[in-house]
Amino acid sequence: MIAIQDYYEDEFSVCFGCGRLNKDGHQLKTFLIGNETISKHTPDKNKTAINGIVYGGLLASLIDCHGTGSASVFYAKQNGIELEQYNAPRFVTGNLNVSYLKPTPLNKELVLKGKLKEINGRKVLVSIAVYCEDILTVEGEVIALLLPENFKI
Amino acid sequence: MIAIQDYYEDEFSVCFGCGRLNKDGHQLKTFLIGNETISKHTPDKNKTAINGIVYGGLLASLIDCHGTGSASVFYAKQNGIELEQYNAPRFVTGNLNVSYLKPTPLNKELVLKGKLKEINGRKVLVSIAVYCEDILTVEGEVIALLLPENFKI
Repeated sequence: MIAIQDYYEDEFSVCFGCGRLNKDGHQLKTFLIGNETISKHTPDKNKTAINGIVYGGLLASLIDCHGTGSASVFYAKQNGIELEQYNAPRFVTGNLNVSYLKPTPLNKELVLKGKLKEINGRKVLVSIAVYCEDILTVEGEVIALLLPENFKI
Repeated sequence: MIAIQDYYEDEFSVCFGCGRLNKDGHQLKTFLIGNETISKHTPDKNKTAINGIVYGGLLASLIDCHGTGSASVFYAKQNGIELEQYNAPRFVTGNLNVSYLKPTPLNKELVLKGKLKEINGRKVLVSIAVYCEDILTVEGEVIALLLPENFKI
């Protein structure tokens, strides 16, 4: 199974959170399984808030990247885009909303699950849930915006 | 001038975003100037979204930590707490909302400004604006919650 991030063009693959070409980054991978997207990440031990708890910034980062990746997956599916290297639509974040429901333990694998809420033109709304050992600790919503085809930096 | 993060107890000073004892982290510092809080950070060059642009996860992290730091500053001020080492009230994030208004350029100093919106018991709402060369690129809101005094990990 190939992650959506591995279908991005090279120039869109340098994200610290999910770019396959960013050697220092998290290299998050987003997969579609059924109607849900899945991503997994085990935080480094220095990513603390308070001892033993994952810091909120990392959790926001993971939700952000899994959110834009999920938007790409759902948009491609809805628009009948057959994914191949490197034709995946590239989304950026317009708005990120994160609710920290309970402390997220460090040193354990986190599982992020994404669901499509709405596609409206170039705008895709996804919800993301973060689980640690099957316990929901963080919820997020991402409004992702499709980059224009002629986007240049 | 001493940053609010330097008034936190040691056990609350290991945050990757703003803990003075986290050697690998950003060590963000939040200062009160007038009625506003200020923090500055220059992202490492690997913190890319797309080449030349800061990735959203880092921006969310900075807003998160400057948000809880600002909540501590404003709460101490309103409650007449004279800050000294290490009596600063420690807040954690309940909700983080970030709007990415335009791309934030990499390799430049970012200035975060915080304003108090509301204090309601143990809950403090702050707004955070991120500027790059005086241009507003990102806006955020943080609902910060005061940790109970008997909080144990």
